[in-house]
Amino acid sequence: MSPAAPAYRRLSVEERRAQLLTAALDLFAVRAPEDVSLDEVAEAAGVSRPLVYRYFPGGKQQLYEAALRSAAEELKLCFDEPREGPLLARLTRALDRYLAFVDGHDTGFSALLQGGSVVETSRTTAIVDGVRRAAAGHILRHLGVADPGPRLRMTVRMWITAVEAASLIWLDEEKQPPVTELRDWLVEQFVAMLTVTAGRDPQTAGLADALAAAPDDRD
Amino acid sequence: MSPAAPAYRRLSVEERRAQLLTAALDLFAVRAPEDVSLDEVAEAAGVSRPLVYRYFPGGKQQLYEAALRSAAEELKLCFDEPREGPLLARLTRALDRYLAFVDGHDTGFSALLQGGSVVETSRTTAIVDGVRRAAAGHILRHLGVADPGPRLRMTVRMWITAVEAASLIWLDEEKQPPVTELRDWLVEQFVAMLTVTAGRDPQTAGLADALAAAPDDRD
Repeated sequence: MSPAAPAYRRLSVEERRAQLLTAALDLFAVRAPEDVSLDEVAEAAGVSRPLVYRYFPGGKQQLYEAALRSAAEELKLCFDEPREGPLLARLTRALDRYLAFVDGHDTGFSALLQGGSVVETSRTTAIVDGVRRAAAGHILRHLGVADPGPRLRMTVRMWITAVEAASLIWLDEEKQPPVTELRDWLVEQFVAMLTVTAGRDPQTAGLADALAAAPDDRD
Repeated sequence: MSPAAPAYRRLSVEERRAQLLTAALDLFAVRAPEDVSLDEVAEAAGVSRPLVYRYFPGGKQQLYEAALRSAAEELKLCFDEPREGPLLARLTRALDRYLAFVDGHDTGFSALLQGGSVVETSRTTAIVDGVRRAAAGHILRHLGVADPGPRLRMTVRMWITAVEAASLIWLDEEKQPPVTELRDWLVEQFVAMLTVTAGRDPQTAGLADALAAAPDDRD
């Protein structure tokens, strides 16, 4: 490894790569990607700049996309909840994880979702879309619907976008209201949106009835 | 004017500029911006390529941003509704105009809002954000709230994002359900979202009561 690295033991290739990604994500989390330099990533990881280039020959763009992919995997896991217990309690736990991620990656999360970043490309957009699709897939599976119709799918995708928007506004409003209130409000919005769709769509109506009948032990 | 232009009368500078913008918008409406060439814009407007450059020396990027700004002005007007008659009827008319715009500019609308376009920059993002802010401002003024609190503002902004998301999904789903059903469903979602917030916010509760009490003569 590079003599500039103050590591006390040799890291494996995977460990080093993970270490560089973590350092990059920490920086992208608090500053917009265009304001982060490779030198800073190297410094934060305690390695030399050439070492960063050895792992990411494509430079900052490649490092940013890799960090984004790693963050996207983490975000996808938020909605990967065991299919046990009341539905709304599961949704509440998923939102807790999602909002904790938003809280911990605020600047990077805003920069990415608000677009217009100089390092944004169709590939980064595809990564973000992948998170949205994964979240929608998880929710539809939890709802236990094998073949969701267009109205139900639209409602779930719309709620996911609404959660994203609310998260960005929440960051913008100095994280007010408190995160638990935001979370409960988002769960209530989910039920309200499904209920509206239920008035026009028999498939969703069945789900809304089941949700209303289920015990709600969120607290 | 350029001798290559087959115009039967001289257009004023403003008229020529407007004609070029209209030709550009028509092309950007049906194809992603990166797939539109300046030659095509010139051909559609029936002018020479140098003439297009005379009006837009910055080339396609400048033309695209100008076309976008013109589209943004049109979109902002959608929510600029006289403050007369029941609130939900006003919202319905605004959505009719907005969805007609989405219908008429489908590919360009998707390309822009989904991001990742090669011609997307922080300036184009700011233009799109300006439309969202204008729409939120119009809605809050219609609601008659002088000093909207964070919970009410978040709800209105969240609904606007949800409308955008629903519009994109609607384009994606081959414009199903029919536009009038989509419109009425979005109005109902607005009421439902406000009602949820009303449970936690006295300011919104007052509005929700007024909405419920008002006659609904949307049809």
